Amino acid sequence: MHDMKFLIEKELGNGRGRIGNIETKHGNIQTPAFIVVGTKATVKSLTTEQINTLGAQAVLANTYHLYLQPGDKILKKAGGIQNFMNWQGPTFTDSGGFQAFSLGAAFNNNASKIADRDSDADTTEHNQEKFAKVTEDGVEFRSVLDGSTHFFTPEKSIEIQHGIGADIIFAFDECTSPHASYEYQIEAMNRTHRWAKRSLDYHKNNNKNDQALFGIVQGGRYEDLRKQSAKTIGEMDFDGFGIGGSFDKEDIYTAVGWVNDILPKEKPRHLLGIGEPVDLFGGIENGIDTFDCVTPTRIARNGSLYTRDGRINILNEKYIEDFAKVDSKCECYTCKNYTSAYLSHLFRSKEMLAATLASIHNLYFIVNLVKEIRISIEQGNFFEFKKEFLEKYYK
Amino acid sequence: MHDMKFLIEKELGNGRGRIGNIETKHGNIQTPAFIVVGTKATVKSLTTEQINTLGAQAVLANTYHLYLQPGDKILKKAGGIQNFMNWQGPTFTDSGGFQAFSLGAAFNNNASKIADRDSDADTTEHNQEKFAKVTEDGVEFRSVLDGSTHFFTPEKSIEIQHGIGADIIFAFDECTSPHASYEYQIEAMNRTHRWAKRSLDYHKNNNKNDQALFGIVQGGRYEDLRKQSAKTIGEMDFDGFGIGGSFDKEDIYTAVGWVNDILPKEKPRHLLGIGEPVDLFGGIENGIDTFDCVTPTRIARNGSLYTRDGRINILNEKYIEDFAKVDSKCECYTCKNYTSAYLSHLFRSKEMLAATLASIHNLYFIVNLVKEIRISIEQGNFFEFKKEFLEKYYK
Repeated sequence: MHDMKFLIEKELGNGRGRIGNIETKHGNIQTPAFIVVGTKATVKSLTTEQINTLGAQAVLANTYHLYLQPGDKILKKAGGIQNFMNWQGPTFTDSGGFQAFSLGAAFNNNASKIADRDSDADTTEHNQEKFAKVTEDGVEFRSVLDGSTHFFTPEKSIEIQHGIGADIIFAFDECTSPHASYEYQIEAMNRTHRWAKRSLDYHKNNNKNDQALFGIVQGGRYEDLRKQSAKTIGEMDFDGFGIGGSFDKEDIYTAVGWVNDILPKEKPRHLLGIGEPVDLFGGIENGIDTFDCVTPTRIARNGSLYTRDGRINILNEKYIEDFAKVDSKCECYTCKNYTSAYLSHLFRSKEMLAATLASIHNLYFIVNLVKEIRISIEQGNFFEFKKEFLEKYYK
Repeated sequence: MHDMKFLIEKELGNGRGRIGNIETKHGNIQTPAFIVVGTKATVKSLTTEQINTLGAQAVLANTYHLYLQPGDKILKKAGGIQNFMNWQGPTFTDSGGFQAFSLGAAFNNNASKIADRDSDADTTEHNQEKFAKVTEDGVEFRSVLDGSTHFFTPEKSIEIQHGIGADIIFAFDECTSPHASYEYQIEAMNRTHRWAKRSLDYHKNNNKNDQALFGIVQGGRYEDLRKQSAKTIGEMDFDGFGIGGSFDKEDIYTAVGWVNDILPKEKPRHLLGIGEPVDLFGGIENGIDTFDCVTPTRIARNGSLYTRDGRINILNEKYIEDFAKVDSKCECYTCKNYTSAYLSHLFRSKEMLAATLASIHNLYFIVNLVKEIRISIEQGNFFEFKKEFLEKYYK
């Protein structure tokens, strides 16, 4: 039993892309949609009013981080994450598998990954040795907070996610490094499939709050594994699907397409950790309904801002005396009220408001870009819009 | 020429206290009023929309900090501080004298001062040797940003304040340490009086934007000096007055009263750097019209929150599972939307939103306390309200 309904409203016409609506008991998500990341039950530096005003439809939090702090028991006592963080709309939680691995082992030092499924938490200050041990039963890992040892199983991940209470939750999976061998990819994928089954079984027996469970497709960058994983996960009784893994740019057009041709059409698909404009167009074209990514807020905090003409760095000297808006046509709160010169001053002064205003701008940009893509499909001019946007953005 | 008008609407009846209205070209300030501090043209962690929503009527910025970063020339080019920071209401700038001394010399290590006229800037990380040299002409000081040497004269301070463009600006003064000898207090006071005259002369000859200039009364904790300073400054053609210096609790009832009995009644008086509830009541009772203080936001960032029952520390363990509001009767955005448990989580996780929500709460508390005091004078029950509030708050 779950409260989620998915309706496809119109197809793009290429056999993959579509627009639709995900209905949850906390409201609707018009798809495609960019889901903003609120790792620790807070979209960094923003009030829920600001999240709402910038046009976000849903928030994705993280099981690993909330389990460690403040603990899923607190969120359960609060009546779930919606109540806890005062976000009235739909919520997701990622399963914590990715974090148990990536924060526990030396995962991040690869140049080719573009998926930033990473949680939006600043963990670089922790110098303790990284550590994660995979067994058939689950993953043993160390806390980024205090180095204490913990053990996640698929059942444990779902139990925690039941406590957190998001509308849409994810099966526990192993996200491999793109440097892993073909042999290891097979081993990990098959384990992820067994964990998917265990996640689903535990969920079915314990789902008291009508949460929807999404299975996660893995398989690295190998066509045969991606297809096999899509088939295996797609045949299980999930309410929707996540596509996980580390991608290269071209994988959006290959791996994502292969997978979505196999997954049941009538269920929603979430692409984990992807948020670059070119990848949003590619993902939607290839059948993705929802995205999440920490990039917009993470780069915002460093002064990197999206514009229709590409990213700018507001710390560049030329913005010190630039009294125009960051993006003249942008309708976000930041652009409607503040100039580049003011943002430049806030960043140079290391003022906290810098992060807030930049995060509002970048999230508005990405959330509304996906909304514009939706409209272009509605109006039948997706490919024109894509060409026009990408040519300007990446010129 | 200036655009400011002050009207006394009703007197408290003790010969000192009153309620009134300061009219500026950017709007009215109903007095008494707490002016929120925006040292570097930003009230730390808050958007101007949030400043507005919490009920603030005006913002006070700092000449010293804005001169160093981004530079008064930038603010002038932006069309003044209102345009630069997008604050539509009235603005003040403190003259920078206090900061040139306190950030330049070993001023802060005294236990008795309660005035926190300090700018709300985090400067503790700078380990360079402190340095400030006073001459008849002005103050030589080192920048907290890079150690470079600068020289402020009264004329220079006013010139910078003309560039920043606040509605109400202050004369350049020397704020002495309470440990200074009587002899030094006399010397410094007389210099401040000569600087006041120079500030006024420069202002009259160069005031192109109808800014109002307030003179500052000094004199330390000595009755004869305070009275002498009030007489000398009060006879000059200022548009209003600031009362500066380091105070002990009892000085609010002595020094502030002595000064206000001498200053011309028909002009507004600002008490610099005072913001504790008991001192707000005392200041208003003794004839103060406006206040500013960094304490509400500074303590907010450390998790210290005002309630009607006194200050609480939200990091206290008991708030981890406290799903009630911080203050059940508080109507601020934070209390209307978030629980103590959530604030506890944000502070423990060192999330930026913690500072924002706590600052909104504390500023709302103080700004609205002063508004309630105004209403109590309007309704003729100031002394009852004072007794009731302070008994509960300091019990």
